[in-house]
Amino acid sequence: MATVEELKLRVRELENELIKCKQKQSAMDNAHNQEQHRPKIDKMSSEVVDSNPYSRLMALKRMGIVKDYEKIRTFTVAVVGVGGVGSVTAEMLTRCGIGKLILFDYDKVELANMNRLFFQPHQAGLSKVEAAEHTLRNINPDVSFETHNYNITTMDNFAHFMERISFGGLEEGKPVDLILSCVDNFEARMAINTACNELGQIWMESGVSENAVSGHIQLIIPGETACFACAPPLIVAANIDEKTLKREGVCAASLPTTMGVVAGILVQNVLKYLLKFGTVSHYLGYNAMKDFFPTMAMKANPQCNDRYCRIQQEEYKKKEAERPKVEVVEEEEEEIVHEDNDWGIEVVSEVTDMELEAASGVVPDLPEGITVAYTIPAENTASGETVGETEQSLEELMAQMRKL
Amino acid sequence: MATVEELKLRVRELENELIKCKQKQSAMDNAHNQEQHRPKIDKMSSEVVDSNPYSRLMALKRMGIVKDYEKIRTFTVAVVGVGGVGSVTAEMLTRCGIGKLILFDYDKVELANMNRLFFQPHQAGLSKVEAAEHTLRNINPDVSFETHNYNITTMDNFAHFMERISFGGLEEGKPVDLILSCVDNFEARMAINTACNELGQIWMESGVSENAVSGHIQLIIPGETACFACAPPLIVAANIDEKTLKREGVCAASLPTTMGVVAGILVQNVLKYLLKFGTVSHYLGYNAMKDFFPTMAMKANPQCNDRYCRIQQEEYKKKEAERPKVEVVEEEEEEIVHEDNDWGIEVVSEVTDMELEAASGVVPDLPEGITVAYTIPAENTASGETVGETEQSLEELMAQMRKL
Repeated sequence: MATVEELKLRVRELENELIKCKQKQSAMDNAHNQEQHRPKIDKMSSEVVDSNPYSRLMALKRMGIVKDYEKIRTFTVAVVGVGGVGSVTAEMLTRCGIGKLILFDYDKVELANMNRLFFQPHQAGLSKVEAAEHTLRNINPDVSFETHNYNITTMDNFAHFMERISFGGLEEGKPVDLILSCVDNFEARMAINTACNELGQIWMESGVSENAVSGHIQLIIPGETACFACAPPLIVAANIDEKTLKREGVCAASLPTTMGVVAGILVQNVLKYLLKFGTVSHYLGYNAMKDFFPTMAMKANPQCNDRYCRIQQEEYKKKEAERPKVEVVEEEEEEIVHEDNDWGIEVVSEVTDMELEAASGVVPDLPEGITVAYTIPAENTASGETVGETEQSLEELMAQMRKL
Repeated sequence: MATVEELKLRVRELENELIKCKQKQSAMDNAHNQEQHRPKIDKMSSEVVDSNPYSRLMALKRMGIVKDYEKIRTFTVAVVGVGGVGSVTAEMLTRCGIGKLILFDYDKVELANMNRLFFQPHQAGLSKVEAAEHTLRNINPDVSFETHNYNITTMDNFAHFMERISFGGLEEGKPVDLILSCVDNFEARMAINTACNELGQIWMESGVSENAVSGHIQLIIPGETACFACAPPLIVAANIDEKTLKREGVCAASLPTTMGVVAGILVQNVLKYLLKFGTVSHYLGYNAMKDFFPTMAMKANPQCNDRYCRIQQEEYKKKEAERPKVEVVEEEEEEIVHEDNDWGIEVVSEVTDMELEAASGVVPDLPEGITVAYTIPAENTASGETVGETEQSLEELMAQMRKL
């Protein structure tokens, strides 16, 4: 049997071991906590010190680019789809110090997503919105986050989605300032379109092709520019053999480069729109094979199948009529309007009339490099990227869309 | 004094506490280790399963975009400058499964970098190459990493830099396949230019303007295209009031959007060059204010001040003369050569002759939207971003550059 001295020695040993163990745990905890947070910052400062995360953004004021950069903290942006484009979009807005982000996605992080930016292997299995919120909060704790782990296209979720974009602004009860569509399928785009037409909510659409080498962004102002139901969705022609595009499986190709460029031009357009600088693009395409970036604009279609779109068009006409005629035109590009154009497509890009005429082949009146997207899903096949090319006429596509 | 029973009780208590402490530590260790790694993958597979990080890249083969995607594992790319553009460039290449990355930077991560992608607040204080390697290795342990925490422009470091790009390939002793310049100053660009001219090493240059709203990438093939000493560096005109650009401090503005777009078009050009698809751009600019992307190409200048550039030009001429005349032209765009052009600038973009003529104002023969950069540092002022605009003539700038 152990003596009192032996037991005392054992107690001392154990006490020492326990102290060491707790010290190590505390160090690990500290390291973990450091990983979690930088302190919140109450007021954006222009001070040029290494410890100021906003100095390089506030410098945009000194450079004469943005008049009131701090205003970014008052805006709420909803990002629908937190995949290859949406996650990078959310990260850029977070780093720019946006006021509030509302993220919608129902997918889980998988190792198969690791060929695009943002998510990391240790997050595999987590929901995308949960993993994204964790990373984004570490990057910038000054941003407010709200996440919804559901599919917006089901009836109940759509109602909740409508509720959140109507009342989920930074000041609860106010609407969001902008919705960004970063989804990969037709149904989700149509759901956003329907919601935004009903609410008169401005939104931006984005997309990347199945072959990973083209993409686009589009600004949609209900009643003013073409909505997603006004005209067949447009994509950037990839100029590759169409036969190879016909999908054998549902696995689309993707590249971090194309996704990064599309997220970059999308958020740049968001910043220009919210902070009022430069020219906000109505449509900007990206053809990675040729490094070609077509731009254009489309007016709303008076025969649009979406009732709320037509109502918004009436409201817009009224507002336009009431506006005083003398107004300051800020840095707007000249618009070339093609009068003989069923879809009211206006070319506002560097593409000349001659180039446009040369490009007017199968699909008339679309600028070079832009073609209609083949985004109508074939009878409920598995979800997924369905953007491709088609040689169908606009009329055929519109007829198909109206059937939906 | 404590009894034997009391001491025994205390020993049991301590033993239990210690077990709990060690269990918690082990759980923390596990969580930490999980965060560190996914298993290495020996062979890239096309299998479409959630657990395959390469499925969406290998799909580029099925889509007819890339013939032999696996070849990416055989290439080594050196990235000089791991800042706003370089870090995202390295991440994109890592996620694409590049064989080896060699990173050069001498800077530390600061909170002031948090307005650009990649680095996170908990990394503040770490060297950029160390922090980058840690993150990149977690993302893709299949990539080989080599990092150098030094300034390549000092004499000793320059010699070591030359040695590593000459012999630091995936198979030690072989040169790297490509060097990417993602630096923010004139001296570092000149150092890379000098090294690449001497070694005949192909490289790509990138840059973002001080006002954060324009950027460019450029491919430099020694002896064939203009090197950094052949002609004044070109940048994308930002069309903003020049007076606001004159720097008051050394703090340039920056945006995650512009940096992300430039990294995206840079790595896209790298993929097209290494994996032989699409059209590799010689010069691609990005004007974020107008969403305008000018492209062009410049021939090497026979009067270049760099002796090795002139030697490379002789070698290139010899090789061209020896090449059999009948050859397969792969997807090359038609080039419009301006014969009355001192700098051998060829326009290979969508910019028409008429647009070019219209744009030929102060600086003749440059496509619309491209102007010469004001990158000559004024007598050793503090290092930093020195890209801006100038109205000096090409001749004046060349004279200034020759003095250096």
